[in-house]
Amino acid sequence: MSSIDINCDMGESYGIYSFGNDDEIFPYITSANIACGFHAGDYNVMAQTITKALENNVAIGAHPGYPDLIGFGRRHIPMTPREIYNMLVYQIGATQAMTKALGASLQHVKPHGALYNLAAVDKAVAKAIVEAVYDTTPESIIFGLANSILISTAEENGLRVGNEIFADRTYNADGTLTPRTEKNAIIVDAEAAILQCKAIIENQTLKADTICIHSDNRDAVIFAKSLNMGLINAGVKIQAIGNCSHE
Amino acid sequence: MSSIDINCDMGESYGIYSFGNDDEIFPYITSANIACGFHAGDYNVMAQTITKALENNVAIGAHPGYPDLIGFGRRHIPMTPREIYNMLVYQIGATQAMTKALGASLQHVKPHGALYNLAAVDKAVAKAIVEAVYDTTPESIIFGLANSILISTAEENGLRVGNEIFADRTYNADGTLTPRTEKNAIIVDAEAAILQCKAIIENQTLKADTICIHSDNRDAVIFAKSLNMGLINAGVKIQAIGNCSHE
Amino acid sequence: MSSIDINCDMGESYGIYSFGNDDEIFPYITSANIACGFHAGDYNVMAQTITKALENNVAIGAHPGYPDLIGFGRRHIPMTPREIYNMLVYQIGATQAMTKALGASLQHVKPHGALYNLAAVDKAVAKAIVEAVYDTTPESIIFGLANSILISTAEENGLRVGNEIFADRTYNADGTLTPRTEKNAIIVDAEAAILQCKAIIENQTLKADTICIHSDNRDAVIFAKSLNMGLINAGVKIQAIGNCSHE
Amino acid sequence: MSSIDINCDMGESYGIYSFGNDDEIFPYITSANIACGFHAGDYNVMAQTITKALENNVAIGAHPGYPDLIGFGRRHIPMTPREIYNMLVYQIGATQAMTKALGASLQHVKPHGALYNLAAVDKAVAKAIVEAVYDTTPESIIFGLANSILISTAEENGLRVGNEIFADRTYNADGTLTPRTEKNAIIVDAEAAILQCKAIIENQTLKADTICIHSDNRDAVIFAKSLNMGLINAGVKIQAIGNCSHE
Repeated sequence: MSSIDINCDMGESYGIYSFGNDDEIFPYITSANIACGFHAGDYNVMAQTITKALENNVAIGAHPGYPDLIGFGRRHIPMTPREIYNMLVYQIGATQAMTKALGASLQHVKPHGALYNLAAVDKAVAKAIVEAVYDTTPESIIFGLANSILISTAEENGLRVGNEIFADRTYNADGTLTPRTEKNAIIVDAEAAILQCKAIIENQTLKADTICIHSDNRDAVIFAKSLNMGLINAGVKIQAIGNCSHE
Repeated sequence: MSSIDINCDMGESYGIYSFGNDDEIFPYITSANIACGFHAGDYNVMAQTITKALENNVAIGAHPGYPDLIGFGRRHIPMTPREIYNMLVYQIGATQAMTKALGASLQHVKPHGALYNLAAVDKAVAKAIVEAVYDTTPESIIFGLANSILISTAEENGLRVGNEIFADRTYNADGTLTPRTEKNAIIVDAEAAILQCKAIIENQTLKADTICIHSDNRDAVIFAKSLNMGLINAGVKIQAIGNCSHE
Repeated sequence: MSSIDINCDMGESYGIYSFGNDDEIFPYITSANIACGFHAGDYNVMAQTITKALENNVAIGAHPGYPDLIGFGRRHIPMTPREIYNMLVYQIGATQAMTKALGASLQHVKPHGALYNLAAVDKAVAKAIVEAVYDTTPESIIFGLANSILISTAEENGLRVGNEIFADRTYNADGTLTPRTEKNAIIVDAEAAILQCKAIIENQTLKADTICIHSDNRDAVIFAKSLNMGLINAGVKIQAIGNCSHE
Repeated sequence: MSSIDINCDMGESYGIYSFGNDDEIFPYITSANIACGFHAGDYNVMAQTITKALENNVAIGAHPGYPDLIGFGRRHIPMTPREIYNMLVYQIGATQAMTKALGASLQHVKPHGALYNLAAVDKAVAKAIVEAVYDTTPESIIFGLANSILISTAEENGLRVGNEIFADRTYNADGTLTPRTEKNAIIVDAEAAILQCKAIIENQTLKADTICIHSDNRDAVIFAKSLNMGLINAGVKIQAIGNCSHE
């Protein structure tokens, strides 16, 4: 039986500001990407979110991003690879310690937003991220765009990887994402998303270890529940990637 | 032969802003308190400062403070003990990871500025700090004002402590600091500082494990050198507290 | 016929973070307190909020607060009066320029959160705020707790004032706020709020120029609408304080 | 007799962090570009710096930059023209108010760092900046790279301009800056800088209204004094651009 992980960015609230439907999403995911206080999140939000993840038996990942709260980490901030390395070590370390203090350990690291996109195509940036993970939590899994440079760089350095596909984006026959400029780039119908996920998993047109969903869309909770249930009904086992056997 | 540690706040630069005479001070200290990016410091400054500390064979400590760059952590920011705990776990974790990535491990944790002063007298705050250390790096030593509530709380929880005295402050006969409102509160003469440190160490009027010096005063480097040399000449061994035998 | 202003804190979103039900509240208020980018708000949110206020024919005020986004300006940050003065000049100036660029001018200035509370009881702080208003926008009205030190200080300096009462708080017979520790401190029923507002306005137990409502409570919009309609039905004219004749 | 303005970025300290030799530079300049709290500076530093400028009879300008303290405004942060407009209105307004509170008014506005460079070549960005100045302080002068798009855009919109040349950079015969990649791009010798400035002013190879110097180099003070004195000795009058007659 095939199995898959479902991950979601969580803990992106800040101070008095609330973001996403974390509480309602937790039951339907297996891995949580915890914002580390740079693009979103703060030390209190992190503690609360990790606590809730553990209550829901959801695996914990660090979700480091650019130091840009007002831009939510979605803007590229020019940095040298060495600066990216330092920034990642800092954020991973903070999240790792918070997770340890709450009784668990990091399953994975997934870069956020503009950094995620850059790491998918820029070898030097990918290398900086991989080295930061290697030097802090070498046992954790690097999540990246399926088939991207971040994935290949992590593998070259002996780290375990999570190839990520997006439940709400369409893919071309060759496994690349349909550009957002195309009409059919976005999937809003949960049924269609389930069918595509199932097809990718079964046909292996694309290596898929984990499916990314979002917590902040309208209907995010319904979508998450439908996807989770739909995949189970289709015979796919939903489990955290860290629990999957890997041979 | 008696021995003592000399510590100094280091890595308090930020971005383009330079603070303190770190490079010149390193040869004369044995423990460095690394700013963790909240009251001062940033991930790049942290990496550079820890690297230099290791080159100088100086032990590394986390130096967490209030999230108040413009106030340099010298203003009290109202927080619950739970918030202080979360904030400390975050900063200690980030510094621990950076230290590990550079090949070493944390020797100690010393709260900064207004948080240091509050922890010396407030049991709930002291407890929050001690628990944050216990839950992240239980093997590290808590630095606090000699004889203070932070010290006793750390000991009650089974953590190793570093009683700290200040080289540039005078003490009353009972071991308390002379209030800054008194004329003779501050010592500017290195010779006088050496005599007082030596007297405290030898007479044990106050339990003293580590002497705090400052990097940002005028004549800070000369003072550091004089103190270091003066104590050695007086037969006191200068070594990092983590290297001291403790029976 | 008696008349009253209704004001509400607006523009407290930040970047991607949304706060309050500004769009739904605007029709029921006559004065908007615009967050100035320190405790909340940013330059984009400010521009959008002022634009919407003008579309709704709502008067604009600057709503300066402590530089504490994570604490939402609700924590007291120790500052000298001179620092408070500088901080206020900065925030008022930024908001005034944004308002002017969008075709209007500042009607009032109301300090936020912890600063509002401090200014109500601390003469030196009240003076710093009053001087900042006097030196930047002397024609604007200072909003403060009815009968407070901020109000008297503003009047002593020849500035026009807006005595503020709270729609969702109860008052003692002597015109002071019932402490939050008392059971009956908070009003949740719009009908009761209307009755109290009406009584204060008519009986003049307390000088009341403007009523403060909140945008972020559950039922905030219904409360705002009910209060607005209820006062009109009770024969009170709702209008911006700047439009009231003052003899 | 020809005349020229000498300007320098000032007030770039932050909290406890000191930057530049402002006090020593003031006697040798005629226009100060005041950091507005985004890339550098804070409300206290602004007040102190404007006060000192006025004591030295130096004209005041706003020096807005990207919201990037750690990068000192030297990194390009992706923003829409509308966001740049809002950001500029905010910073200009804050600086204008501070200047007014201290008894003066803004002479000019000069964008900082990466924003300055972008405005020199990007029409949409230049337009956003020009409109922000027009909508807040239309009487003030826009400083920009001589002959750049920012200058032409300002002129098209009826604003007065200050063509800026750099004392420490060499120029090609056609009036363009020698790229920094070339060996001879930087001038360190004050004598050479004086000769080039004098030649540009007299031969009008480039329209030059103001010369930019820096406060933070080694020998910055000596350079500033030498340039000022050298130009005077060469028969050039040094005066703030706002005081120059313009026909």
